[in-house]
Amino acid sequence: MIKLNESTGNTAILLIHCPDQAGIVAAVTRFLSENQGNILYLDQHVDQDAGVFFMRLEWELDNFTIPLKDLEKQMEPLAGQFKMTWRFYLSGMKPRMAIFVSKIPHCLDDILARYQSGEWEVDIPLVISNHETQKETVRKFGPNFYCLPKNSENKHQQEEQELKLLQDYSINFIVLARYMQILSSEFVRQYKNRIINIHHSFLPAFPGAKPYHSAYERGVKIIGATSHYVTEDLDEGPIIYQDVARVTHRDSVADMVRIGRDLEKIVLARAIHAHLSRKVMVYKNKTIVFS
Amino acid sequence: MIKLNESTGNTAILLIHCPDQAGIVAAVTRFLSENQGNILYLDQHVDQDAGVFFMRLEWELDNFTIPLKDLEKQMEPLAGQFKMTWRFYLSGMKPRMAIFVSKIPHCLDDILARYQSGEWEVDIPLVISNHETQKETVRKFGPNFYCLPKNSENKHQQEEQELKLLQDYSINFIVLARYMQILSSEFVRQYKNRIINIHHSFLPAFPGAKPYHSAYERGVKIIGATSHYVTEDLDEGPIIYQDVARVTHRDSVADMVRIGRDLEKIVLARAIHAHLSRKVMVYKNKTIVFS
Amino acid sequence: MIKLNESTGNTAILLIHCPDQAGIVAAVTRFLSENQGNILYLDQHVDQDAGVFFMRLEWELDNFTIPLKDLEKQMEPLAGQFKMTWRFYLSGMKPRMAIFVSKIPHCLDDILARYQSGEWEVDIPLVISNHETQKETVRKFGPNFYCLPKNSENKHQQEEQELKLLQDYSINFIVLARYMQILSSEFVRQYKNRIINIHHSFLPAFPGAKPYHSAYERGVKIIGATSHYVTEDLDEGPIIYQDVARVTHRDSVADMVRIGRDLEKIVLARAIHAHLSRKVMVYKNKTIVFS
Amino acid sequence: MIKLNESTGNTAILLIHCPDQAGIVAAVTRFLSENQGNILYLDQHVDQDAGVFFMRLEWELDNFTIPLKDLEKQMEPLAGQFKMTWRFYLSGMKPRMAIFVSKIPHCLDDILARYQSGEWEVDIPLVISNHETQKETVRKFGPNFYCLPKNSENKHQQEEQELKLLQDYSINFIVLARYMQILSSEFVRQYKNRIINIHHSFLPAFPGAKPYHSAYERGVKIIGATSHYVTEDLDEGPIIYQDVARVTHRDSVADMVRIGRDLEKIVLARAIHAHLSRKVMVYKNKTIVFS
Repeated sequence: MIKLNESTGNTAILLIHCPDQAGIVAAVTRFLSENQGNILYLDQHVDQDAGVFFMRLEWELDNFTIPLKDLEKQMEPLAGQFKMTWRFYLSGMKPRMAIFVSKIPHCLDDILARYQSGEWEVDIPLVISNHETQKETVRKFGPNFYCLPKNSENKHQQEEQELKLLQDYSINFIVLARYMQILSSEFVRQYKNRIINIHHSFLPAFPGAKPYHSAYERGVKIIGATSHYVTEDLDEGPIIYQDVARVTHRDSVADMVRIGRDLEKIVLARAIHAHLSRKVMVYKNKTIVFS
Repeated sequence: MIKLNESTGNTAILLIHCPDQAGIVAAVTRFLSENQGNILYLDQHVDQDAGVFFMRLEWELDNFTIPLKDLEKQMEPLAGQFKMTWRFYLSGMKPRMAIFVSKIPHCLDDILARYQSGEWEVDIPLVISNHETQKETVRKFGPNFYCLPKNSENKHQQEEQELKLLQDYSINFIVLARYMQILSSEFVRQYKNRIINIHHSFLPAFPGAKPYHSAYERGVKIIGATSHYVTEDLDEGPIIYQDVARVTHRDSVADMVRIGRDLEKIVLARAIHAHLSRKVMVYKNKTIVFS
Repeated sequence: MIKLNESTGNTAILLIHCPDQAGIVAAVTRFLSENQGNILYLDQHVDQDAGVFFMRLEWELDNFTIPLKDLEKQMEPLAGQFKMTWRFYLSGMKPRMAIFVSKIPHCLDDILARYQSGEWEVDIPLVISNHETQKETVRKFGPNFYCLPKNSENKHQQEEQELKLLQDYSINFIVLARYMQILSSEFVRQYKNRIINIHHSFLPAFPGAKPYHSAYERGVKIIGATSHYVTEDLDEGPIIYQDVARVTHRDSVADMVRIGRDLEKIVLARAIHAHLSRKVMVYKNKTIVFS
Repeated sequence: MIKLNESTGNTAILLIHCPDQAGIVAAVTRFLSENQGNILYLDQHVDQDAGVFFMRLEWELDNFTIPLKDLEKQMEPLAGQFKMTWRFYLSGMKPRMAIFVSKIPHCLDDILARYQSGEWEVDIPLVISNHETQKETVRKFGPNFYCLPKNSENKHQQEEQELKLLQDYSINFIVLARYMQILSSEFVRQYKNRIINIHHSFLPAFPGAKPYHSAYERGVKIIGATSHYVTEDLDEGPIIYQDVARVTHRDSVADMVRIGRDLEKIVLARAIHAHLSRKVMVYKNKTIVFS
C-alpha cells in the first residue's frame, strides 16, 4: 500500500475482497456516505464458485470528513465485521515504476513515448537492463539507466543489486518490457502482483521461448500477446490483458514477429494502464479487471 | 413494466436512473439489505456530463421480506427522495417477443434455432411478415405466423392489425429480423425502446438501403452490423451492440453480403440477450449496457 | 478428386503443388491460355522453408478447347516436367457432405439453415449421430438421419456401418458438428483432409475435453474456436480457420459456453465455405487458405 | 517511379493494371521466365465490374538477363499489346519519406521509434510542422525539422516552401502524422497517391473535426481509425487500412481519445508498411492491397 500523504489527490480508491455475504455493499457505501464521501465509481464482482466478494470504490475527498491518517483505524470495525482484505490508494499519488529491458526496443520505446507525452500518471525514474543496447534511448527520455549483465554465476548477486536499486528509487512496481531473463522466486516474492510481464503469445498457447516460431510451425491463423503478473511459475501468472491479430499462410516467422511487436506494445500498455488505475485485483491466479 | 406475479422467479432486478447525488447507492443497498435482499449483482454508471446516475441491481427473493405486491409502495419514499425513475423485473418471468421478418431468412433462422434449443428465457408466440416466404420455416418451430403485406395505401391499416396482434399475444418487445418496412412514428411510439432492429452496416456509416453496395463503392476495409432500438428517425436509434469483420479488395458485394449475414445474426442475438437480461438502459438516445 | 461430368459447371479449378522452381506460373498459364482458358483467378504461394510451390487457378470453360475427359492426359507432360501433385474440380459440381453430430444442436442448426437458404453449393443427404436427440430437427430440413450409438465395444462395428453409409450416399467430405466421439485412425485415413472438425478452443490452447472449463480456470481474457481437418492425433490437425471473442472476470463457464457457441458455428461455417470453394490446400500439417 | 540504380536491390517489383483479357498472366510470366527472372511472388486481381486486371510481381534479379536500364524498352511491346499502365521498383532502393505533424505526438513518436529500430526500409530525412512543439523529439531521432506555421493568409506561401523542401530532400512520399492543416488541391495533385493520412474515425463515419466527440454523442460501441491517401476531397480518399476497438458507456471522450491513439498509430504504421512494400494500387478511389 502506498503511504498516505494528505497533500495529494482529490479522490481515494478502495479495493476490497472478503467472503461473500449479504450487506457488504450497504455497509461500505453507508460508511462513506455518512462521512460525506461522494462515490464516483463503484464496481463489484462475486466469484460464485469461491464465495468471494470483490469491490472497487472511488470517492471524492473534498468533503470527506475522515482525515486520511485516521482512515485505517476508522475502517477497522467494518473490515473486521466482514473479514475484509483491503487496500487504499490516492488517485493523486503517482506510482513509481521501473522498467526492465533487454535488447529489443519496441515495448520500451512505446512506454517512454507515453511517459514523455504525459499519457499516464506515473513516474519512471529507473530502467535496468542486462545489455547496454538501450542506454542512449533511455537517457534521451530522462530515466536513469543501469546495466546489470547476467550469467549463470552472477544472477543472485545482480538481483541483489537490482533489489537495492528498486528500494533506492522507491519503486512501486516493475514492468518487464521484453526482459529476457528469468527472475528468481525470491525476487518475485518481494514484488508479488507488482511485476508485469509481456509474453509474445496468446497464453496458455506457446509459453516459453520462441513462441512465434512455434505458432508458425503449428499453422495457427491468429497470433496473440499476453500481459500478466509474474509468478514463480514461468508464463503461468494471472493474465491482465490479451489481444490477437490474424495471420495467414503468407506470413513468415519474420512477419509474425513484426505483427506481434505491435500487439505486444499495445497489450503491455493496456495492462500498465489498468494497473495504474488500480482496477486490477488478483485472486486464485486470476485477475478481476474492473472496467 | 412487466406485471408482478409472485409465483415466478427467485431473483428480482431493479433498473434505476436519477439525478446524481451523494448517497444513492448507500440508500438503495441499505433498503434491500434491511429487508434481507441478498444482492447478487450491482453495477452503476454516472454520466458526468449529464449529471445522471444509473444502476442495475439483482437480488435473491428467497428471504426478501417485502411482498412483491407491496414493493412499489415501499420503494416510494426512497424513489421520491432521489427523484428516481425505476423499473422492476422478475428474472423468472419470461418476456414475450414477436419477430417481424420479410423474405431474408438468416436472422429469423438463427433466432428460431436459439429458441428451440432453450438458449434464452423467452417466449416467441408470434411472427409477422409482409411476405409468405418464411411461413413454413416459422411453423416448423412453433410460433404463429401472420402475413400482412404492405403497400403505400394499406400501411396504416396493416399496422393497426399488427398492433392488435401484439396486444392479443401480450407481446413485450419486438425484434425486426431484417424486416424491410419502415414502421410509422405512431407505431414506434407505442413500443418505445422495445423494438430492436438489426441494420446491416456499421452505423452511423451507411444508413438506409443497400449498405453493402455503399461499403463496396467506398472501398472500406471493414464492414459491420448494428443492433439498435427503433426510433422515429430511421437508423438513428440508440445503439445496443455492434460488430465488424475484415474485407479486402477481393470481396465483391455478394461476398460482403455473405460475410455480413453472419455479423447480422450474431449482433442481433447479442442485443436480444442483453435486452432479455435487463441489462440495457436508454438515455439521451444512447444505451448503457451493463456487463 | 471429383469425377468429371461434362454437363456441369462453367469454370474449372486447379490446385497444384510441386517443388519450387522458375517458370511454373509461366508454363501453366501458357497451357491454359493456348487452349483458350480465360483465367478468372490465380493465387499462388511459395513456402520458402520447404521449397514448395502452391497454386490455385480458376478459368472459364466456355471456350476452353480441351475436352474435360482429355484434360488429365493433356496435363501430363506439364505435370511430369514440374513433378506436380494436382487436383481438378468443376465449380458446377456440388460436393456431397455428411454431418456427424451428438446432442448439442447449434452447429447443426446453423449448417441446416444455411443449407435450406441455398447459401452454399453443396448437397447434404446424410446426418449421422450417436444419439436420437437431433432426429426431428434433421428431418425437418431434408437429410436422412441415422442413429449409430457407440460404446467401447461396438465402436469398430459402428464405424464400419458409418463407412458404408458414406459410400452409399457418395459422400465427398464429412463435417463433425460437435460430434463427441473420437474417430479411429483407420476411419480418419480413409477421409484424409476431408473431415472438418470444430474444436471449442483457440488451439493449441486447451485441446481435449472441457476447454471452456480450462479457459475459465486459467483466467484467459479471450476465448476462441478452431476448425481443422481431423488427423489421427486428437485436435492436432491442420487448422483452417480460427476466431476469438473477449471475456471478462464476470463471465462464468456458462457464459463462455454461450459466447463460444456463436464462435463455433461461425468458425465452422467459414471453414466449410473455404473447403467448398476449393481454396484450402494442406501441406506439412498446415493449411494454405487462398483468399 | 523511383529512378533505377543498378547497384541496389536484388529483387524487382512490377505493378500492372490494364483492361482485363485472356492471356495477360501467361504473357508477363513468360516474359520474365524467358529472361531468367525467378518469380518469388505473384498476386493478381480482376475487378469484374470495371473489367480491369491488376497484378503485382516480384522476381529475383540475380540471373535476370535484361539490364535494368533496358527494362522499360523491352517491356514496351508487351505493355503496348495489353494497354498496360505499369510501375517498376527495386526492393533494395529505400524510399524517402517526409512526415508532417502538428502538436499531437503519438503517431510521430511511433514512426520515429520504428525508424530508429530499423523496422522499415525507408529514409526519413525531413519533418515539417506548423508548430515548434515536436522539434526536440524529432532532433533526437535524426531527421531535419522545419517549422512552417500557417494561417489563412500565408498558406499558399508556406506550401510553396514545403514543396521546395520536399524537392530538396528528394522526398518520394509524405505521411501526415496527425497534421491538422488541410493541404491545397494544388499541393495534393503533385503527390497523388503519395500522401498518407491517418483519420481518427472509422470512415466514412465521422469525417472532419472532432470525430471522438461525435462518436461519443452517437453512442457507438466501436471506434476506429482509417489510413488513406489524401485526395482533394477531405477524408474521402482511397482507404488503405482500418482497425477498430470496442468502447462502452463507461468510456468518456477522453477514454476514446486514449484508446484511439493506439488505433491511430498502428493503423498508420500498417498503411506505411503496405505502401513501402509496394503492395498498394489505387483505382477508382479504392485500393487494392495485396497480401
